[in-house]
Amino acid sequence: MEIIETVAGIRRALDAWRKTGAVIGFVPTMGALHAGHGSLIETARRETGCVAVSIFVNPIQFNQQEDYIRYPRPLAVDAEFCRARGADIVFAPAVEEMYPSPQRTFVEVAGVSARLCGEYRPGHFRGVATVVSKLFHIVQPHRAYFGEKDAQQLAVIRRMAKDLNVPVEIVAVPTVREESGLALSSRNRLLTPEQRAIAPALYQALRAAAEMVSGGLRDIESIKTLALEPLAWHPEIRVEYFEIVDPDEMQPVEQIAGPVVIAAAVWLGSTRLIDNVQARPA
Amino acid sequence: MEIIETVAGIRRALDAWRKTGAVIGFVPTMGALHAGHGSLIETARRETGCVAVSIFVNPIQFNQQEDYIRYPRPLAVDAEFCRARGADIVFAPAVEEMYPSPQRTFVEVAGVSARLCGEYRPGHFRGVATVVSKLFHIVQPHRAYFGEKDAQQLAVIRRMAKDLNVPVEIVAVPTVREESGLALSSRNRLLTPEQRAIAPALYQALRAAAEMVSGGLRDIESIKTLALEPLAWHPEIRVEYFEIVDPDEMQPVEQIAGPVVIAAAVWLGSTRLIDNVQARPA
Repeated sequence: MEIIETVAGIRRALDAWRKTGAVIGFVPTMGALHAGHGSLIETARRETGCVAVSIFVNPIQFNQQEDYIRYPRPLAVDAEFCRARGADIVFAPAVEEMYPSPQRTFVEVAGVSARLCGEYRPGHFRGVATVVSKLFHIVQPHRAYFGEKDAQQLAVIRRMAKDLNVPVEIVAVPTVREESGLALSSRNRLLTPEQRAIAPALYQALRAAAEMVSGGLRDIESIKTLALEPLAWHPEIRVEYFEIVDPDEMQPVEQIAGPVVIAAAVWLGSTRLIDNVQARPA
Repeated sequence: MEIIETVAGIRRALDAWRKTGAVIGFVPTMGALHAGHGSLIETARRETGCVAVSIFVNPIQFNQQEDYIRYPRPLAVDAEFCRARGADIVFAPAVEEMYPSPQRTFVEVAGVSARLCGEYRPGHFRGVATVVSKLFHIVQPHRAYFGEKDAQQLAVIRRMAKDLNVPVEIVAVPTVREESGLALSSRNRLLTPEQRAIAPALYQALRAAAEMVSGGLRDIESIKTLALEPLAWHPEIRVEYFEIVDPDEMQPVEQIAGPVVIAAAVWLGSTRLIDNVQARPA
């Protein structure tokens, strides 16, 4: 496995792979890798001939400087993690390599970016869409792998790829969870043991709402109220949003008539966790 | 020469060219082709193995519906024009082929887009950058050819390509002019004979300003006032802007210390003409 730090370097390496006829699989990450990323890499490994993983903590998608600074960056451990799962290339550029001059060009996905995380993290999805556009142009993969855990990010990238005719197939990979149900996240390691013990309540609330939907409940406000009730037992959990949305548009639905995504963000102290589940009416 | 109307069709055709090892040259146009476009196609023909020309009047870059509707669309003549200059492929998609669903994703280039035409045509460069991004993803050319006549457009595309790591070389081709100095433009055919007779005054004013710059004048307001004086003889000409700008940033310079672009837009009746010249201090 090669670790490459420059745009020119990874282009050269991938040109050589392309000449062999290999299908290029790409897993963009911000590092701090866990079994969720592992599942992306392993899926890419099964489906493609060359697996490239990028590790880049992208400054322009953080709306809080504080969050950017404390984001974990265990690069050596991450590289070993990729190697162990059969990646061929790790692309780990410095910030100056990705943004050598002031970034003036931004990719915006209206609508899909507006609600949920987009509402509470202004500019976040603009930063995500922009860096993914850059990485796609650098790597030029055939297939790119994204986790369902970040449902809105997945919808934004899918819409960007469709709207801009990006010649990359976007592949969604299911969320990996602890036995408790807590979705794996790089931010979990920022939780105190006490916070970690109550964090699974987020998934339990989402599951409860999904079961109400599949069980035939239709009143959205009632579903939200009932599902969120158990969270009141944990005053340490602050709910930022809890919404039932359309899977493609990521806008709250007015009535439940087809498949929906139930998505939530909560704060535990100064750490923000997101999660979501899919549901469909019976 | 093939005329192709679908995204899937041109991808297929270009894949076959790519397999031969041909360098792909791309000339994006809105049709109504004239010798200025001819020069783009001929330059591409000399420099690349496969020349693709797109002809697409892009609705999202028009800020006035009226202008979009009256934009000339002589497709059969245009296709023959391309064939005669040795193009291999003409890509002429319908609006529904380029925008099959509501466009939610836009590429914005801040700063470079802000002044000159960007100031008077809100959303114009966002529409240009977005459709060029789409066309680049569809055609995946090695080199793309743009006229210096649209200096700000060229600067916007160059900045977009740099900021988003687009793997396309942007080639600038000099403006083609009538003997009178009038820059060729698809909009010239909308002029009445009387308007056409006075239109060369635009280039004369730009040349006059450029000669003042190269002759050592430094006071920007004086240069503009002196250069624009002859236009006052033609009350039919309304000057929208006349600015001395930085060639990369397209922002008005405060002092003349290096190469500049002198750019202007004027109205003749309901037709808007733009032009520009490069200049550098002695």
